[in-house]
Amino acid sequence: MKYREMTAEQLSSEYERVIKYYRALSEKSLKLNMARGKPCKEQLDMVSGLLNALTSPQDCQADGIDVRNYGELSGIPSAKNLFAEILGCRAEECFIGGSSSLTLMYDTISKACTHGLLHSTKPWSKLDSVKWLCPVPGYDRHFKITGSFQFEMIPIPMTATGPDMDLVEKWIRDPSVKGMWCVPKYSNPDGITYSDEIICRIASMKPAAPDFLLMWDNAYCVHEFKGAFVPFPDILSLCRVAGNADMVFEYASTSKITLPGAGVSVMAASVENQAYMKKLMNVQMISYDKVNQLRHVRYLKDRENTLALMQRHAAIMRPKFDCVLEWLEKEIAPLDIARWQSPKGGYFISLYTMPGLAKRALILCRTAGVVMTDAGATYPYGIDPDDSNIRIAPTLPTIEELQQAMEIFCVSLRMVTLEKLGAGRCPPPRQSGEDG
Amino acid sequence: MKYREMTAEQLSSEYERVIKYYRALSEKSLKLNMARGKPCKEQLDMVSGLLNALTSPQDCQADGIDVRNYGELSGIPSAKNLFAEILGCRAEECFIGGSSSLTLMYDTISKACTHGLLHSTKPWSKLDSVKWLCPVPGYDRHFKITGSFQFEMIPIPMTATGPDMDLVEKWIRDPSVKGMWCVPKYSNPDGITYSDEIICRIASMKPAAPDFLLMWDNAYCVHEFKGAFVPFPDILSLCRVAGNADMVFEYASTSKITLPGAGVSVMAASVENQAYMKKLMNVQMISYDKVNQLRHVRYLKDRENTLALMQRHAAIMRPKFDCVLEWLEKEIAPLDIARWQSPKGGYFISLYTMPGLAKRALILCRTAGVVMTDAGATYPYGIDPDDSNIRIAPTLPTIEELQQAMEIFCVSLRMVTLEKLGAGRCPPPRQSGEDG
Repeated sequence: MKYREMTAEQLSSEYERVIKYYRALSEKSLKLNMARGKPCKEQLDMVSGLLNALTSPQDCQADGIDVRNYGELSGIPSAKNLFAEILGCRAEECFIGGSSSLTLMYDTISKACTHGLLHSTKPWSKLDSVKWLCPVPGYDRHFKITGSFQFEMIPIPMTATGPDMDLVEKWIRDPSVKGMWCVPKYSNPDGITYSDEIICRIASMKPAAPDFLLMWDNAYCVHEFKGAFVPFPDILSLCRVAGNADMVFEYASTSKITLPGAGVSVMAASVENQAYMKKLMNVQMISYDKVNQLRHVRYLKDRENTLALMQRHAAIMRPKFDCVLEWLEKEIAPLDIARWQSPKGGYFISLYTMPGLAKRALILCRTAGVVMTDAGATYPYGIDPDDSNIRIAPTLPTIEELQQAMEIFCVSLRMVTLEKLGAGRCPPPRQSGEDG
Repeated sequence: MKYREMTAEQLSSEYERVIKYYRALSEKSLKLNMARGKPCKEQLDMVSGLLNALTSPQDCQADGIDVRNYGELSGIPSAKNLFAEILGCRAEECFIGGSSSLTLMYDTISKACTHGLLHSTKPWSKLDSVKWLCPVPGYDRHFKITGSFQFEMIPIPMTATGPDMDLVEKWIRDPSVKGMWCVPKYSNPDGITYSDEIICRIASMKPAAPDFLLMWDNAYCVHEFKGAFVPFPDILSLCRVAGNADMVFEYASTSKITLPGAGVSVMAASVENQAYMKKLMNVQMISYDKVNQLRHVRYLKDRENTLALMQRHAAIMRPKFDCVLEWLEKEIAPLDIARWQSPKGGYFISLYTMPGLAKRALILCRTAGVVMTDAGATYPYGIDPDDSNIRIAPTLPTIEELQQAMEIFCVSLRMVTLEKLGAGRCPPPRQSGEDG
């Protein structure tokens, strides 16, 4: 029965039942973590071939380069070819980074602040104010970057097909609006893939700022866990055709293809942007780790082989997403107290409680031993104005752990919803069992 | 016979001989590179065990961490222990980076500009002027970093025991002097090791700037190629004892211990600095490549084993330095036209021509097929006021190549010196055979 259709008496007795259930679960003193989009051990073990991809000096020769020595700032040609094939861009548009695309993103914005971008009239640190468009909910680490540089972050609501472009097109008339975060495929956290129409509107934007920076984080470009690979357009070509060749920087990595702690990243941008950035990056480094670049080239081989590997990841991930969704369908859907997406790729399930309940629901979870991403993290400044969005990351735990975690999550969600509906306040959660 | 003691006639006939010799060497159309301090293939092959240090999932577990997954921003504990043992500092003072200590240095200065350091009153980008002390000659890539951030670089002459501290102590009374580059052991390029007295004076400086940044690039901390390992003091302790705990950031890497293109770097600083920087770096990355960190821990094991490996590098490098020195002793010393150091470690031999000759000598070298570090590179803004310093990097070529390169170098140096002494102008060098 839907909670909102219950009488006061029904609510009260339901609350009695739920609170007993919650207390019983809390007694188990579990320690489960669904906070981050982390691959599980089985996924890591699956790519062990990477560790043995280069074993001798002869193995380390590629493209006429000894990858063990200094040089090749922008990465080895065969790594550029691999990423160009995956992203659909040109090899000369690729800069190969280290284990973290986040670092490449941070560094691009940092250099915009300290040195300016190709079309900047001055470094952003010399400007009175920098505004930044943030589709919400979004990736907490993106918002931490733009927050760290003191940009004023403007939330842009997401629709089912991408960011609200009417609003974006209004905002970019302001020349102090310098950029925008985008996760175009399986967005973090909602799992929304931008429609072709939205992507074309984005590529065709005419921002007032000549150095507007479209941060295109294609983190989940080949990361289907349900169904076949879904092709995506090359944002670099689209921007070029729209006369915006230098507006976009695209990022991707193998963190969720091979090893999160030891992958290879890429920054794709126009040849002119590459030339400009390489001049700046040449001061910062000689090159990223080229041995690991070649390891990845030898192990992943090409796009086709990479997509096949992603299907093997999918086989491990799919039952975990199904488990979460089954719990929600069975325990929450009949009560009509939350809504959620059912994505086909990415690393998250995004759930919306009734307004004002996300924080408290996650406190109850944590108290019962289940750590999830902090409520609010998916919004700029860590503030969800509705206190409603919860990001569920199902990949790290085992199925058995997930079952336990979802049981706790569902009962916590029921409890806070009942409270909101007037069924009484839960006593303060016990303090023991918390883990910072 | 010393050139300066020759009569005009002797100079003229010597010049005739030398120019013929130079032309004959030019005909060989060689392509030799002594531009950078690059280890040679034999050195890289020697550390192939690194490639096979981790081959299975079980190998990737250390310190209770699965190094393949996300996490551990500041690096794995066992890598901190290894570097702490080598540097003589505490493990908790170590932040483990990627393949490039240069990147860690750049990022420290970049963050000083965008965010400020622990004791900054504001980010340096908000200041009208930042001045920076540069012992000269020094490392070109250091000067490129401080130049890139538009710092005003103040040259500080090097003495036989380190930077001219009287001058340093005068300059640091200016609160806009925000920092100083140091390569304390086997300085780049002179190979000078700072005396204990100089190091103590540096550690005890009382700069007017509360956020003065002592950049201690211990690039050659274990890099003897002649004789036994020479111990060095822990700059972090010395600064701490002098009441300057937060003034210093020390850097080192395995680039010239294992692989230049795939090593591991470290940034050592006070626990307070680590805490401050980690807050900023947590926005930039999840962690550097931890698999490669563990590879290095397993391969290098400890300080003792690392020092033994460095002796094996030394056995390869020593004959190359000897070759360069023998050529200089035999061909140049009797003419009394240049002076140079004979270091026991590091990667360079630094030579001083008579004033005004370095640029032209290297043009002649290049024209005859030998590329060396650009003259001037060892000074801020790429300008050697005396146009005299030449950095020779003997490690990459084979001994046979070195013999050829040094033959060309010596004859080029003789030619430009003879010109300076009035023996006539050399015809413009041929253009063919140049390589950018």
